[in-house]
Amino acid sequence: MLRSHTCGELSLSNVNQEVTLCGWVDSIRNLGSLVFVDLRDKYGITQLNISPKLFDKYVIKNEYCISVTGIVNKRSNPNKNIRTGLIEINVKKIQVFSQSELPPFEIKDDVNASEDLRLEYRYLDLRRPKMIKYLQIRNDINKYTREFLYKNGFEEIDTPTLIKSTPEGARDYLVPSRIYPGSFYALPQSPQIYKQILMISSWDRYFQIAHCYRDEDQRADRQPEFLQIDCEMSFCNRDDVLEIIEGLLKYLFKKIKKVNLSDFTRISYEEAITKYGSDKPDLRYELFLHDVTSILDNCGFNAFKGKKVNALVIPQVGETLSRKEMDEDNTLAKKYGVYGVSHLKYQNKEFTGSIVKNINPEKLKELAKKLKVKENDVVIICADNKNEKSCIGLGALRCYYGKKLNLIKKNDYKPLFVLNFPLFEKTDDGKYVSLSNPFTRMLDEDIKYLDTTPEKCHSYSYDTVLNGVELSSGALRIYDSEVQKKVFKLLGLSDEDINTRFGFFVDALKYGVPPEGGFGIGVERLAMELSDTDNIRDVIAFPKNLKAFEPMSKCPSPVDKKDIDILGLEIKKQDDK
Amino acid sequence: MLRSHTCGELSLSNVNQEVTLCGWVDSIRNLGSLVFVDLRDKYGITQLNISPKLFDKYVIKNEYCISVTGIVNKRSNPNKNIRTGLIEINVKKIQVFSQSELPPFEIKDDVNASEDLRLEYRYLDLRRPKMIKYLQIRNDINKYTREFLYKNGFEEIDTPTLIKSTPEGARDYLVPSRIYPGSFYALPQSPQIYKQILMISSWDRYFQIAHCYRDEDQRADRQPEFLQIDCEMSFCNRDDVLEIIEGLLKYLFKKIKKVNLSDFTRISYEEAITKYGSDKPDLRYELFLHDVTSILDNCGFNAFKGKKVNALVIPQVGETLSRKEMDEDNTLAKKYGVYGVSHLKYQNKEFTGSIVKNINPEKLKELAKKLKVKENDVVIICADNKNEKSCIGLGALRCYYGKKLNLIKKNDYKPLFVLNFPLFEKTDDGKYVSLSNPFTRMLDEDIKYLDTTPEKCHSYSYDTVLNGVELSSGALRIYDSEVQKKVFKLLGLSDEDINTRFGFFVDALKYGVPPEGGFGIGVERLAMELSDTDNIRDVIAFPKNLKAFEPMSKCPSPVDKKDIDILGLEIKKQDDK
Repeated sequence: MLRSHTCGELSLSNVNQEVTLCGWVDSIRNLGSLVFVDLRDKYGITQLNISPKLFDKYVIKNEYCISVTGIVNKRSNPNKNIRTGLIEINVKKIQVFSQSELPPFEIKDDVNASEDLRLEYRYLDLRRPKMIKYLQIRNDINKYTREFLYKNGFEEIDTPTLIKSTPEGARDYLVPSRIYPGSFYALPQSPQIYKQILMISSWDRYFQIAHCYRDEDQRADRQPEFLQIDCEMSFCNRDDVLEIIEGLLKYLFKKIKKVNLSDFTRISYEEAITKYGSDKPDLRYELFLHDVTSILDNCGFNAFKGKKVNALVIPQVGETLSRKEMDEDNTLAKKYGVYGVSHLKYQNKEFTGSIVKNINPEKLKELAKKLKVKENDVVIICADNKNEKSCIGLGALRCYYGKKLNLIKKNDYKPLFVLNFPLFEKTDDGKYVSLSNPFTRMLDEDIKYLDTTPEKCHSYSYDTVLNGVELSSGALRIYDSEVQKKVFKLLGLSDEDINTRFGFFVDALKYGVPPEGGFGIGVERLAMELSDTDNIRDVIAFPKNLKAFEPMSKCPSPVDKKDIDILGLEIKKQDDK
Repeated sequence: MLRSHTCGELSLSNVNQEVTLCGWVDSIRNLGSLVFVDLRDKYGITQLNISPKLFDKYVIKNEYCISVTGIVNKRSNPNKNIRTGLIEINVKKIQVFSQSELPPFEIKDDVNASEDLRLEYRYLDLRRPKMIKYLQIRNDINKYTREFLYKNGFEEIDTPTLIKSTPEGARDYLVPSRIYPGSFYALPQSPQIYKQILMISSWDRYFQIAHCYRDEDQRADRQPEFLQIDCEMSFCNRDDVLEIIEGLLKYLFKKIKKVNLSDFTRISYEEAITKYGSDKPDLRYELFLHDVTSILDNCGFNAFKGKKVNALVIPQVGETLSRKEMDEDNTLAKKYGVYGVSHLKYQNKEFTGSIVKNINPEKLKELAKKLKVKENDVVIICADNKNEKSCIGLGALRCYYGKKLNLIKKNDYKPLFVLNFPLFEKTDDGKYVSLSNPFTRMLDEDIKYLDTTPEKCHSYSYDTVLNGVELSSGALRIYDSEVQKKVFKLLGLSDEDINTRFGFFVDALKYGVPPEGGFGIGVERLAMELSDTDNIRDVIAFPKNLKAFEPMSKCPSPVDKKDIDILGLEIKKQDDK
């Protein structure tokens, strides 16, 4: 190696040693009688002490890549903020490997540059210690995930990324075939079908950290390509899969963040909705929804009549909550499809608020008792024909007040599994649609509903939620071909539909399907949690921007006409404006 | 779990235990008074002993997926060929998970089915123990590669797979952009540019097991998508990189094949060509080429006059080598661009052969002495204007005779590095073309030739060869921008050419490039070596066939017109025939 040490490892124990370091010039302080240079590499920064005589022999500027040889000295003015802050190098020899133009922004954590500029010069942006840390966490997730899954008997299989396009799900990225002009491969949205085929192949315990692709309009937390920890196992119960998920996430948080996650709470989808108003509830604060239908559906107020009515108590805000804030609450709740919410302040042992006059006073007393309201509490009420809608409207306010009232402790982690999602929904015209995918297995005790009231069927499905964020989802799959046929029939799928939509996979189901289940964890989402960043582009080395464009390489880009010709394609003329 | 054990783990120590196994019915032998069923999963086969009374309660056929519970018994007639052959299960309870249609071929290692049929029913093909083994070796390569590289301070970064199309190299697979109609992403042929950018980003030690893509006409050993172990490190000498490659390959062969590879021989490209007639020489047999130009270029035979003449001695075939075989040798050599080869048999202390009469007898004696020929040896002579061509023609025959004469010992491994490839070739019109890529660093001692005789420049490049197969290639990269500019100029590249061909990468070179080098290892090629198969499709779970088609999912395939429309493309009408 051209160096004896990295810029992050020298300490007092190295004093008087001759060392050679390589790296980039982070900063230069020329004091006239002495020149201090901070030399940076991936591992840290080391201070160089260079005589003006030696320094002036070279042209050295920020971001030049150089090598220095010298003696490790104890610093007279130690810098306790960095690992190598107790020493410096008395430089005897310098080699300049390469020069640098003036960077378009400073290489430091609190950089003052637009994100597109940072992405355009990503090779400079990635020199910032914060970015190195983010990518190391991404590396660590993949490293420790493999470590954990290998230990648990899983073997990694990479499934193809040039696959058949199917009309299911989001939009595929297509790859034109040159050998079959007019035909296309698709880039996979997930390895779902292949992993189930691997179980039919007897692979038993599969995983893959898979490249997945979705051609969607970009949102802040989406990217055209992303990684998924994808897992599937045979001959298992639901709890066997949950044990793997829980074990894996505990392992990752321990290894990467030194956090011991508590045992994962398990709640049903129904409880998540009715108690927290969300299928990914944040358990870090104790605000709960209460079903007050029996009190209010017949309280004299027409707006509640015959509705499902839920209430959320916001403690100790009665005096401060303004009309404007109440309007904002209403606006937020409406985004979730409800008609609105009503506020009741509890002051001087009485409710006040615009709807109070409409409600039977006895009912108000009953309400206060049931909700155990205290002086100065505010009760937010939401009513809707559907209980789920009413709950979700309040759930949004629950999250909002959790943050607004600072109910969230720092470094608090509350992991849970949400179980037993409903499988089918009955539409207004009496048809059934799948709320999952049609291969998801229903609870054994719910099979009895399949012929009569399918909307009562719940599935062996499970989401993993941490602090209000969905980290993984998964399910057991149907292995009984009779049940599978019934589900297809219930959904009104003809043989032709089935063939078009699921094609060869349905053929594979004819040759001995094992009981199986699995899950997928989005690597970017997890990396963001472990990195404490809310920007997905921070945890990807070379991300696309919000317009699916990469500012560094400037792609996508036009290509030669002959390269399009050979694919049997042509670019359509733009319509006249 | 639905099982207590796998089908591969029970032994005499489990006798009298009650166990539950899950798996697929491998075979049924119904003896009337007893029924023997072999139950198979990924881990092995266990014999079930079922009473006819119990067996007849169910319909059970081959490849049905079932579970059985019973007692482990010592077998009266042990099967020593399988791990579980000393025991069987006396079955008390059976559960049929799922049925199977009659498979289109038998699930056994010596399967009697066309490869396309096996690929169409890949989920059945992958149940064969041999295929499981192949994929496990692929898994193990990736697993142990990561283990080794992590230990050596490398961190894995996944680089984008939707990148900019560049006109370099083989043909890109293109991905049309929906947001920018008429623009395209390309799938990467390798992460080459991104890994060099990561070094400029100060990442220091990068690796990735990367998905790579090439839209080439398929050959037996090619696939549209493949994996590459891709590595790059900064502040290193060539030997630092070679140490990593050698360490990694030794680790993999030890872990996966229990083979201790010897230390890697190092030879120059020139020695490889002149001694073995190949840039990937097979060192398992001691047939060497000899430069006999000084003896034969002026021996009286016009065909050799002024030529570079090389000789290969094939021992002890003089009596048996037929005219027809000599013609075949000639045909083979011609494929490598030489005019032909001549054979001289050494019998009764004299050379015989069609060209003997043309050669001065003294020169023949000199030749015999130099080559130390023995009675019954055959000398094959090849002459060409270019020494390299003459050598490569003979090199092909060297390989051919190595196999034909059974000179290759089984389980013999002879790894080597081929070093110092030439960098530039002078074309007939006096121009220079790059034999590598224009970023490859030249030997320090050859920089002096750059201005005067660039064809003498050799590079810090290195191929790893094992038994005649190229396993990896790599190089150090130029970090000095002055040298880089000279190389671009030598190759006649204008600023515009440079920008078109290398684009944003050349911008990155302006900001402090470290001395760096790396390598790539093709996972499939390595998996084939470690699996002892010469079929690349054996080491990929779901490969494409030779026509880049996947018979199971039947892709590529047509897609809806609207999905093409939205990309701003249309399918060209086929020309009339």
